[in-house]
Order: sequence, then structure tokens, then C-alpha cells
Amino acid sequence: MAVELTRKIRFCSAHRLYNPNLSEEENRRVFGACANPHGHGHTYALEISIHGEPDPKTGMIVNIDELDAVIRKEIVDCVDHRHLNYDVPFLEGVNPTMENMVVLFWKILADKIPAGTLSRIRLWESDNNSVTYTGA
Amino acid sequence: MAVELTRKIRFCSAHRLYNPNLSEEENRRVFGACANPHGHGHTYALEISIHGEPDPKTGMIVNIDELDAVIRKEIVDCVDHRHLNYDVPFLEGVNPTMENMVVLFWKILADKIPAGTLSRIRLWESDNNSVTYTGA
Amino acid sequence: MAVELTRKIRFCSAHRLYNPNLSEEENRRVFGACANPHGHGHTYALEISIHGEPDPKTGMIVNIDELDAVIRKEIVDCVDHRHLNYDVPFLEGVNPTMENMVVLFWKILADKIPAGTLSRIRLWESDNNSVTYTGA
Amino acid sequence: MAVELTRKIRFCSAHRLYNPNLSEEENRRVFGACANPHGHGHTYALEISIHGEPDPKTGMIVNIDELDAVIRKEIVDCVDHRHLNYDVPFLEGVNPTMENMVVLFWKILADKIPAGTLSRIRLWESDNNSVTYTGA
Amino acid sequence: MAVELTRKIRFCSAHRLYNPNLSEEENRRVFGACANPHGHGHTYALEISIHGEPDPKTGMIVNIDELDAVIRKEIVDCVDHRHLNYDVPFLEGVNPTMENMVVLFWKILADKIPAGTLSRIRLWESDNNSVTYTGA
Amino acid sequence: MAVELTRKIRFCSAHRLYNPNLSEEENRRVFGACANPHGHGHTYALEISIHGEPDPKTGMIVNIDELDAVIRKEIVDCVDHRHLNYDVPFLEGVNPTMENMVVLFWKILADKIPAGTLSRIRLWESDNNSVTYTGA
Repeated sequence: MAVELTRKIRFCSAHRLYNPNLSEEENRRVFGACANPHGHGHTYALEISIHGEPDPKTGMIVNIDELDAVIRKEIVDCVDHRHLNYDVPFLEGVNPTMENMVVLFWKILADKIPAGTLSRIRLWESDNNSVTYTGA
Repeated sequence: MAVELTRKIRFCSAHRLYNPNLSEEENRRVFGACANPHGHGHTYALEISIHGEPDPKTGMIVNIDELDAVIRKEIVDCVDHRHLNYDVPFLEGVNPTMENMVVLFWKILADKIPAGTLSRIRLWESDNNSVTYTGA
Repeated sequence: MAVELTRKIRFCSAHRLYNPNLSEEENRRVFGACANPHGHGHTYALEISIHGEPDPKTGMIVNIDELDAVIRKEIVDCVDHRHLNYDVPFLEGVNPTMENMVVLFWKILADKIPAGTLSRIRLWESDNNSVTYTGA
Repeated sequence: MAVELTRKIRFCSAHRLYNPNLSEEENRRVFGACANPHGHGHTYALEISIHGEPDPKTGMIVNIDELDAVIRKEIVDCVDHRHLNYDVPFLEGVNPTMENMVVLFWKILADKIPAGTLSRIRLWESDNNSVTYTGA
Repeated sequence: MAVELTRKIRFCSAHRLYNPNLSEEENRRVFGACANPHGHGHTYALEISIHGEPDPKTGMIVNIDELDAVIRKEIVDCVDHRHLNYDVPFLEGVNPTMENMVVLFWKILADKIPAGTLSRIRLWESDNNSVTYTGA
Repeated sequence: MAVELTRKIRFCSAHRLYNPNLSEEENRRVFGACANPHGHGHTYALEISIHGEPDPKTGMIVNIDELDAVIRKEIVDCVDHRHLNYDVPFLEGVNPTMENMVVLFWKILADKIPAGTLSRIRLWESDNNSVTYTGA
């Protein structure tokens, strides 16, 4: 009887899509305006989903306030109001595409949340673009 | 060739998270402000999903107006503009967390909708908090 | 050169629309299901607007973090996760309609924000219902 | 390590739900106001999801601009600002329910996108009504 | 002490922008794809605003259920699931642009609502396009 | 009989709030995390409102496609996927707060749109923060 709970938190970051192993020309061809040198930015929305059987004592599968605190400490406080290419230790050397970010977020959170309960991460960079990762 | 159709309906309810088998102190520790004695409230959004093969005659897996009528009669009319801890017979003795509510909603609807067609229930208590249940 | 800045904050409250000077029957007739005895609830959204000339030193008419702190201290912390009919001193004896709430919120905030800068308060009880007050 | 990327695009179309093999009376009974002779319309939102392993060179599973171009050329440019019952060759003879549309959109896109990468299509005709198809 | 209350209701209509006094060529030049012969459609959102002093007895400037009933009877029931160019008596001979619609809606409602209380009508044809009219 | 039409367009930019005439310490005190050296970013939404009497020939106060083209050419193409502190000629030397941006946008657009028709500019940096300017 597994229920999935989803918590959404927003953060505001700058980033630039760029692969230093590619030529300037190829970076431009692959990433378009996303490769502009000084970067651009997004109001990201991050959805973290936990699944499990509701605890009969609390009727909850997780305490949302505690989940929120973990997400903020491990991820949001590290990326919010930062430039993802320069300011975030766990993104060092990573091209900050939505796909790379969501896989990294999973690795970070999976260690901080009871084993097997993290079920889904969705990251929105705008109302029209998002990625979802379920860990495999 | 199963398509899933989702209908969203809103309702406005008060509730209090509280377990009478726990001490006042533990209720406060577990549920925080959600345990405030007189309750608080939400503009809930309820999404009911049905899946199946579209009927060749109608091109639909379910008539949305008929589905809407069932959801309103069986759930929304019972909880809308009510206090979930006092006014809803099927929630009597239940701590009205999103998790408990979505499992109960499933049990109620599964009996009123053609067998095997109910596929997903999602309940939002705010834009940032939701739970999803798929029946197992 | 006045710019208007708007900050939105959400809160979750229970309330009941009821006038003790009217009969039960008339309360029911006027307020419908909103008069149900134990109350219902909403995920409210509160928008506070400040207007003024941007400060040449900061380029801002108000520091959003400071504005946010005032709104939270004076209003949101008092109403969030409360029953508006029982738990909020400044609403004592007030029928908590959106209209009455927004006028009271204005009176409270006008004293805590530099004179003449409060320009608009909008209160949403759902995506479909809202009221706006501009102080006169 | 499959990530799913979703792109949302809107289009504005008229349509009428009607099955010429049914009597007028039965069309009215089954489709209600959706069978009104001149049709009605929606601001549709179409979400196309692609899944796959991020390319190590780009950090992306698909270039969103290229995906967007395919969706526009194959679907959106054909249906936007059209009457779905009269103006769209690939909908000829099809009753344009959300269910029928989403299955047809799948067939069209599956041929234009690298094999096995199309993972989900969701079509919204309003904030409250949507269908999802995953290809089987 | 005037408060403004806003009620939002949605409707789904088809329409075609076309002026029979212009040539086909000029209709095409002026209205673009909006002049396509069979029409297209939108999920419209209509916001009706009423202003006035809250009634001391009710704390409300208008009963939302009663306002809702007037808007539905006078406007929404006439345009919902209709083709605006063919099915709506009060739009006969009118080019159904958002601008023309909102002015006509005003004329209709101003007669059905207590004099001087109608303060604003906003009509959205999509999340990105809207018009507002305040009666003068 | 003036109607106001509003067009919304989104853009994605990085920026840093910083006044070079203030000390590092004061920049930090005034702008908080918004002064982080490499900047952060937002998915901005820009709403441009035009008012006027509908043209009897077209039923419109402005052609939305033409308005859209002007907004894109004069503003959105200059700021989208850019760092507002480095990449935008018309923002050179300007601290890119929402307030400063909206006033500058007004000056730019007022020269490109028929005199007296620009009525309102609203700029959102998130769902919760926005500014509005009406030109005086």
C-alpha cells in the first residue's frame, strides 16, 4: 500500500551550458544561446517524491517539514541564488543541464533519506521544460 | 492501447492532524502547527485517473460528465466546506492526512467505477504538497 | 515615477462565515455551506503591494526580504494553520469574509510600513475567488 | 540511467465530438454540448516526453530546440488555429476526442523521433481535463 | 471603503476573426490564422469584478454564489461549447475579438447587477493574452 | 471606451544586484544573496499592456502578433539567455532590479508603440515577486 508524496521547492540560479572539450563553434551549435559566455538563469522548481506505506501512528509516509529541511540543506541552500557553473561544489566539472542536475540531486538525496524511499525527482526550468528521474 | 484520463476537482475543507492515542506533547512534536486544536484548512485539488482502451463508438474511455458526477457524489459533496475531523462519516476515526485520505478515496471510488479502470488518485493540499496513490 | 511591487505569500486556515446576530436560518440562507458549524478551509494567497519611487542607491522601492518579514510577523504567522473564528486576536468578533479580512489586513500593515507606501492588498481564497482593497 | 524530458507546447483549436454512425439523438446523449453542430474550442496544452540516457558529450537526452521543431512541424502547425473536424488531414474521419488525438499524435511522432525514445504524451484541453498515453 | 471582488469562470468556445466588409486578402493580412474559415478555439477565462462597501450584516459586497449564477445565466451558458460566430444571439454580426467580447459582456452584465457595482471585466483567451475593460 | 490588452512573454536571464558605489559589506547587507558575485537567475515573465479604443474595422486595439514582434525585437531578444549585468547595452551601468528594469523597458517601448497607448508593464521574477509600472 505505497503512497507517493511530493514536495515542491523553488530556487533561482544562473547557469551556462558548455562542454570545455568541444570547440566554441560546436558548443554554439549544440547549446545555442544556452552557451552564451556569462550565462543566463531560471526560476527552477524542484519536486522530490518519497514513497512508502503510511505509518499507522502518524498517517504519514514522511514528515513534510523534515523532508523540506533535508532538501533545503542538501540541495536548495547550495544552488539558490548561485551560478551553477562556479558556486556549487557538487556541480564542479559538470555541465549543468537539467538531466545532469537531476541525476546528481538523486545521488545526494538517496544518501540522506531512508533507503528505498526516494521514488522520483522532477526538475522544471520553466513551465514548459522539465525532466524526471526515477533512479534507474 | 490503454489511455489514462484525469479529471481534477477542487474542494475546500478544514482539518486537524491529531492522533488521540498520542500525548498532546507528541502530537505537537509530530504534527507541529497541523495539530492546532481548532484546525486549519486547504483548497484541495483532487485528480482522479481512469485508464482503459477508448470505446470505438465514442472515442472515449469514460464520459467525463459521468465521471465528474460520481466523484462529486461519492467524495466532493461529502468533504467540501466540511471539517474533515467532524463532518465526514467515512473519515470517522481517521487522522485526515493526505496519505490516509487518498487511500480512503480509492476504496470508495473503486467500488463505484467499472472494475480495474481506476488507475491513479492524486490529492493536492497546496501547490507545493501532494500525494499520489495507484492502489497497491 | 512610482513603481508598485507585489509580494505573494500563502497561508492555510479554517474559517466559518456566520453572523451571531442573525438566526440560524438566515445564516444558512446568506452564507450557504460556508456557515457549516465546524468550518471549512482554504489555501489562501495574500498579495501585498507597495508603491514608491525606486531608491537611487538600491534601485528598489522596498527590500523584499524585509517586507516579507513584516507580512509574516504581522499577518501570516497569526493566521496560518489557525481557525480564523477562534485563534486570531485581531479577528475576534469579525465574520472572516475575504472582504473583512482584507480591510483588517490593511489597517494592520498600514501602521507597520512607511506611511503612504501601502498601495494594494489582494486576497485569494481559491484560484477563482479573490478580493482587492486599495485603502479607500 | 534513463531520464525523461518533457516539453510543453500550446495550440488553439475548434472541434466537435460526433460519430456519424450514431443518430443525432444518440450523439447528443453521449457527447452532450460537445456535439453542438458548429463546434466549440480549447486552448490545448501538449506535453511530449522523451526518455533515454543523457549523452556524455552534451549532458542532454535530446536537444529541446530540435524536439520542439519536430513537434511543431508534425503536430502543432497542423492543428493550431484549425477546426479539428475539417482542417487536419491526419484527423480525417476521426472523432477528435482527447483519447483519439493522443494515440494519433503518438503514431505520428514515433516515426519522427529516434526509435524507443518517445515515452509519454499528455494532452490537456483545460486545467481540469487531460489524457496520458504511453504507447501501449 | 470600497473592496473589489473578482470571480473567475471558464468557458470553451470556437470563433473566427473575420470582417465581411473586408476582402479575403485583407482579412488574411489583418487576422492571420485567426481568419481560417472553419474557426479555431480557446479555453477562455472570464473574470468579473464587483466593487462596493461590504454589507455590515454579511461582511460581503456580493454573494459569490448569486454573482456566479448571474454570470452563468447571462454569459457563460450562452457562449460555452458554442461557436461564437454562429451560435450566440448577442454576438450576431460582431467580430468576436476579445476586445469586442469584453465590451459586450459589460453591457449585458451592467443591466443585471446593482447599478454602479460592476467595476472590471477581464477576459483571457490563453495564459498569455487577455483584455481588461472598466466600462469607459 | 478604452480597452486594455495584455501580452505576456517569458525570458530567462542571469543577474546580480550590486551597486559599485557601495562597499562589499553594504552590498551584502542591502542585497543579501542577490549580491553573490557570479549572479543567479530567473525565468522572468513580462506583461505589456496597451490601451485604446477598438478599431471598428478590426475589433482590436492592437494586432497581437505585431505587438509581440516589437516586444521581442526591442526587449526579449536583448535580455533572453543573457546576463543582465554584462550582455545588455541598454542596461549598462544599471543595477538590474525589477524596478529599474521595468522603468527602462517602458522608456524603450514608449518610443516604438503609438503615442499614448502603452498603459502598463508588469515584470515577474517568480510567481511570488513582481513589479508594475504605469509610466508616472
